[in-house]
Amino acid sequence: MRGAVARAFDAPLRHDEKAWAMILERFSRRNLPMRESNRRQTLIPQGAEPIYNNYGTAPGFAIPACDGRPALIALPGPPREMKPLFEEQAVPWLRSAFPVAHCQRVLEIHTAGRSESDLNEVVADLFGARPDVNVAWLAGGGMVRVRLTLRAATAQALDALREEMRAEVVRRIGEEDVWGYDDETLPDTVGRLLAERGLTIAVAESCTGGLINAALTERAGASAYLKRGFVVYSNDAKVEMLGVNPATIEAHGAVSGETAAEMAAGALRAAGADIALAVTGIAGPSGGTAEKPVGLVFVGIATETGVETHSYRLGGERAMVRQYSTARALDLARRRILREWTAPHTR
Amino acid sequence: MRGAVARAFDAPLRHDEKAWAMILERFSRRNLPMRESNRRQTLIPQGAEPIYNNYGTAPGFAIPACDGRPALIALPGPPREMKPLFEEQAVPWLRSAFPVAHCQRVLEIHTAGRSESDLNEVVADLFGARPDVNVAWLAGGGMVRVRLTLRAATAQALDALREEMRAEVVRRIGEEDVWGYDDETLPDTVGRLLAERGLTIAVAESCTGGLINAALTERAGASAYLKRGFVVYSNDAKVEMLGVNPATIEAHGAVSGETAAEMAAGALRAAGADIALAVTGIAGPSGGTAEKPVGLVFVGIATETGVETHSYRLGGERAMVRQYSTARALDLARRRILREWTAPHTR
Repeated sequence: MRGAVARAFDAPLRHDEKAWAMILERFSRRNLPMRESNRRQTLIPQGAEPIYNNYGTAPGFAIPACDGRPALIALPGPPREMKPLFEEQAVPWLRSAFPVAHCQRVLEIHTAGRSESDLNEVVADLFGARPDVNVAWLAGGGMVRVRLTLRAATAQALDALREEMRAEVVRRIGEEDVWGYDDETLPDTVGRLLAERGLTIAVAESCTGGLINAALTERAGASAYLKRGFVVYSNDAKVEMLGVNPATIEAHGAVSGETAAEMAAGALRAAGADIALAVTGIAGPSGGTAEKPVGLVFVGIATETGVETHSYRLGGERAMVRQYSTARALDLARRRILREWTAPHTR
Repeated sequence: MRGAVARAFDAPLRHDEKAWAMILERFSRRNLPMRESNRRQTLIPQGAEPIYNNYGTAPGFAIPACDGRPALIALPGPPREMKPLFEEQAVPWLRSAFPVAHCQRVLEIHTAGRSESDLNEVVADLFGARPDVNVAWLAGGGMVRVRLTLRAATAQALDALREEMRAEVVRRIGEEDVWGYDDETLPDTVGRLLAERGLTIAVAESCTGGLINAALTERAGASAYLKRGFVVYSNDAKVEMLGVNPATIEAHGAVSGETAAEMAAGALRAAGADIALAVTGIAGPSGGTAEKPVGLVFVGIATETGVETHSYRLGGERAMVRQYSTARALDLARRRILREWTAPHTR
């Protein structure tokens, strides 16, 4: 690739010694054997600005546009290197190389419990209604987010437009179905609600097999609220770890509202948490019956005021059923926390 | 989009009544309210073949190439609909619309414990060495896979070429560092090794927070081998769920080989499993010190023959540290199972 760029831009390759020093440092720190190919990675075209790589070995580089010849940014291929280097170095480089005449930003509003066509009805008249606002929505993970692309002449005007549109869309959707904005994730929101209130949670998972616990620990700081997690894929584990009555499983099945309720109550008790979530369902592809088809999922939520259960009939293949179950369970926890523990409005 | 296609292909839109019947059936089964926009989804251009959607509402369609005009396939946008419809309907349609003169397939060989530059040295001379084999590698999740694109005149010759190249590459890399092929995942492999031997596993997770349990339950059938999972993000949970000695945490820290060893031994005992994995580490971004930096991870593995611990110094941000830790732990389990329980070679 380097060679092709060098030819296309008529710029001979040179070794970048700072990139080489970074590679040497990286290998010695990790005690890894050096390869000849690592030296070749430090070749970049003359006149290019190096993009130093804190995430791997090969540096990237940027060649400014000149005299009708386009600009070029080359980044290492692995997404774990390319993505942060793009954000941290390529975007600032592009901003300075290509200044823009107006300000633009995207506002994403995350919803739960609403379908795409449902949201369509609610915000349809905003589509194309004004030139400075572009509305779209995106579905994913069993939830829909509304994406507003906003344009204004100044940063201040853009902030005002953002707040105006945010308030308008949230008013139309209803506050209770909006759980966050932009890069926020549903587990972030649940974690924040728990942390703000000094609450702890326990999570018992059968069909989701650890996904809800994994989601709640995505960001640092979860040790403040994630009391304990139980992965109870087998009936034995449900009985022994959570104290589910074997007679309940016998009478109603491991996938039932009754079992979900006992799992949640048992997790609450065993962990000494303020709130407990429990999920049991048929993720598929096998294990479904006419009465209990693939996609049938029960979520139990327990607090000291009592246990509630919800059932869902989710579509899609195994991974989707597990992902949707995780989102549904976290959203139920969010609604229950807001209902049961009021706290100062923080946004 | 439909309208644009209709204009570009000069094909007026028509309602597809089978697609409409499918939408009606879907909504009544789920008891969802019908929207006007759903009716519009059933419009497809005259002359197009409908691609019926079992995963959502909007159907796709395919327009054959004709008289210099290109073919077109339109699929609904959500990946959970688009991907299976592409595999199940678009690919067969393309195969019949555009028959090919030679056979081609990709063989991916999954490795663990080897770096990219390491594998480069081992297979470099295969690059461009013959016209019917194209070699590349891809890094992801802390592991590298070698991708061979193979071409032959007949399906039989292609099978022979696949086996020849597979054996050659595996011989060069070494069998113990190859854990699977093509669509296999590392948790699949670990699950298969456990199931073949009638073994059970327990997994205790601190910094990975449920990811290893979630990985082991990605495919159906995990109840045969996943005995119990423990998410022990807090010190309390480590002590109370796994019997870790508080003095061990006090003396060596929650992130230490000593704690990882006690976690693994405790999980083995509490679950009555044949093998137990335990992970504790500093996923970041905060919590690192000079002595124990972000990315430091300890994995404990216990069987009745004893406990071993391994430590890693992983790069990247929080999500990467958690993902790499998951891969390292599963790979250690794979190696330990193969070492401790020999079984008939099944590949």
